[in-house]
Amino acid sequence: MPLITLTTDFGTTDPWVGIMKGVIAGRAPGVAVIDVTHGIPPQDVLAGALVLRHAVPYFPADTIHVAVVDPGVGTSRRALCVATDRALLVGPDNGLLSLAAGVVRRIVELTEERFFLSPRSATFHGRDVFAPVAAALATGTDPGALGPTVSDMERLSIPAPAPVPEGLRGQIIYVDRFGNLTTNIAEEALAAFPRSNLSISIAGARLCGIAVSYGAVARGQAVAVVNSWGLLEIAVRDGSASAVLGARAGDPVTVGSRSS
Amino acid sequence: MPLITLTTDFGTTDPWVGIMKGVIAGRAPGVAVIDVTHGIPPQDVLAGALVLRHAVPYFPADTIHVAVVDPGVGTSRRALCVATDRALLVGPDNGLLSLAAGVVRRIVELTEERFFLSPRSATFHGRDVFAPVAAALATGTDPGALGPTVSDMERLSIPAPAPVPEGLRGQIIYVDRFGNLTTNIAEEALAAFPRSNLSISIAGARLCGIAVSYGAVARGQAVAVVNSWGLLEIAVRDGSASAVLGARAGDPVTVGSRSS
Amino acid sequence: MPLITLTTDFGTTDPWVGIMKGVIAGRAPGVAVIDVTHGIPPQDVLAGALVLRHAVPYFPADTIHVAVVDPGVGTSRRALCVATDRALLVGPDNGLLSLAAGVVRRIVELTEERFFLSPRSATFHGRDVFAPVAAALATGTDPGALGPTVSDMERLSIPAPAPVPEGLRGQIIYVDRFGNLTTNIAEEALAAFPRSNLSISIAGARLCGIAVSYGAVARGQAVAVVNSWGLLEIAVRDGSASAVLGARAGDPVTVGSRSS
Repeated sequence: MPLITLTTDFGTTDPWVGIMKGVIAGRAPGVAVIDVTHGIPPQDVLAGALVLRHAVPYFPADTIHVAVVDPGVGTSRRALCVATDRALLVGPDNGLLSLAAGVVRRIVELTEERFFLSPRSATFHGRDVFAPVAAALATGTDPGALGPTVSDMERLSIPAPAPVPEGLRGQIIYVDRFGNLTTNIAEEALAAFPRSNLSISIAGARLCGIAVSYGAVARGQAVAVVNSWGLLEIAVRDGSASAVLGARAGDPVTVGSRSS
Repeated sequence: MPLITLTTDFGTTDPWVGIMKGVIAGRAPGVAVIDVTHGIPPQDVLAGALVLRHAVPYFPADTIHVAVVDPGVGTSRRALCVATDRALLVGPDNGLLSLAAGVVRRIVELTEERFFLSPRSATFHGRDVFAPVAAALATGTDPGALGPTVSDMERLSIPAPAPVPEGLRGQIIYVDRFGNLTTNIAEEALAAFPRSNLSISIAGARLCGIAVSYGAVARGQAVAVVNSWGLLEIAVRDGSASAVLGARAGDPVTVGSRSS
Repeated sequence: MPLITLTTDFGTTDPWVGIMKGVIAGRAPGVAVIDVTHGIPPQDVLAGALVLRHAVPYFPADTIHVAVVDPGVGTSRRALCVATDRALLVGPDNGLLSLAAGVVRRIVELTEERFFLSPRSATFHGRDVFAPVAAALATGTDPGALGPTVSDMERLSIPAPAPVPEGLRGQIIYVDRFGNLTTNIAEEALAAFPRSNLSISIAGARLCGIAVSYGAVARGQAVAVVNSWGLLEIAVRDGSASAVLGARAGDPVTVGSRSS
């Protein structure tokens, strides 16, 4: 039986995630359910989409990834199952699934109510729609049985870095629990600058060069690395770059040559 | 083998829950353990009882639900296994199990120390009593082997809404991570008021009508819905009603007709 | 197949733990993974070592315990698999594994890159080194295949209590989510003082005697107990000793006879 993963903004203080797992356990006994995270900031669809994008490649092929960051729950927003070349993605049609989708094979709108819980609430489709649909998929239901195939879905895009006179201007797109600042500047884009002569401006601070690890600087010092997502990250050794630099998601980051 | 669920106020920063799972894994190899939540506010037995009540119906029949919100640990408070018409509930006898109990078939006091860890601490019966007892039940031990059948248990009650001149006065009984405010006013009680003409007073604010979803109002606006527990809930679209309205558990909520 | 446990400072808001589980699921299908905790304070190696020490004894023999509190990730710090008389410990060589190691049978440095993910990041060896190594061990790889046997590892020590004129001076070594204050004074050391006549000084407060449970005092009162780790703990009934006493890790605690 394939795995099911869960990525939500439900947090861990309430029983929402546990209840979803109860529904899955009842309908797909023995299926393994793995939490990617439930710490997506409330209603932050882009953060959820980013996390899902970077998690999916590390799971086995054919895993069923359920994602619920769903401020439009109960409205006319559609619910989807997206079959890609390596996984099934299940969640609301608000862009949440789009960054992880890669090569899309089929998009199905979830309309077949016989797969849902009944009655269905207007506030908790994680329990009433997405969990039972995931259980159905895990037990062999073909995605095509869940509703009609549709031609499109909502798509989000990660803001792209832009050329500026000094070099390249990007932004912070994710701040993790350590206060590490992930930017939207990929390792490939950094190749345009001489690595030893590279300058990074962020929140009024200036860093020189890309280090090979956090340990390349003294404790409490800021350091730039290419992180585990293949993106430029600003960290503070044994500390929080977010706190030390006073930086957060959306703040600009500029990369250039040191002479500039 | 049946499932085991865990509902506690242990949080996720300490190893308490992991240690319970280690004990269970050693005594009931292969059993699946699902976390309902460990985010019950410390020592808040009523919150734990409410969460358990609304989680149990979504798990398979015969699931073993372990709940530990146990400020009286190590005192003479009893430890129980409650067999209901659909599940086994295991935890301290302080009311925690009572709201989920439904039709009670048998109440057993956990006295047979051969099922406990030895030595038994005075501060962590989750590890020393409730986890090993759950493992014993999961591997087929009859509840009757765990101790004597007793006739009663501590019972909590959810405060009931009261009639007032304006209509019905209830209160907030649960605030979730989104800041959504669950009240003790059930959907059935709302039926006494014309749905289109209904007025809700909470924390100095007044809402009109029950919406079908959070999305029925503009971003940042307060909205009343019937939530996934079948209870009146006050939310703020894409925001926190608790923060916006300055409301918290225990605060009064009054429902009436708009003309009142 | 043996169990795998995870103990990290990754928190629960990011996908780091979920991604590790994806890697494990892909390489050791069906293996059970139990979270000890991911709430170790960032970079707090001693807290992680303490937690691991007190968790390992409650898991089945031969469990594979992965621990990642790793401020030196990407530097020349070694990665280890430590085979003890009851478990396998996997993690960075910074002392994190040392308090749980007990009787060490063999220490292997993880150098065989064929067991790692490729490419390997410099910031996330939980995903790229420790998760795949744990999966290899779970599927039967001999620790000796992972690299050369080495003769030593970094070792931490819990600060030991010291004799003082009043009796014994220790310190707070762990503060849990309830605000309970665990000290480094073991039950055995308390035996030197007449239990009924024992005096404890902490953060300007003085407690008399060791109680059998939290419930021995009135609500809101401080109480000393021997806790589930066999250590002297100061708690406040139905409250937080850390908040009430203004105490935290590192603060001194003195035990003496009441007459002193």
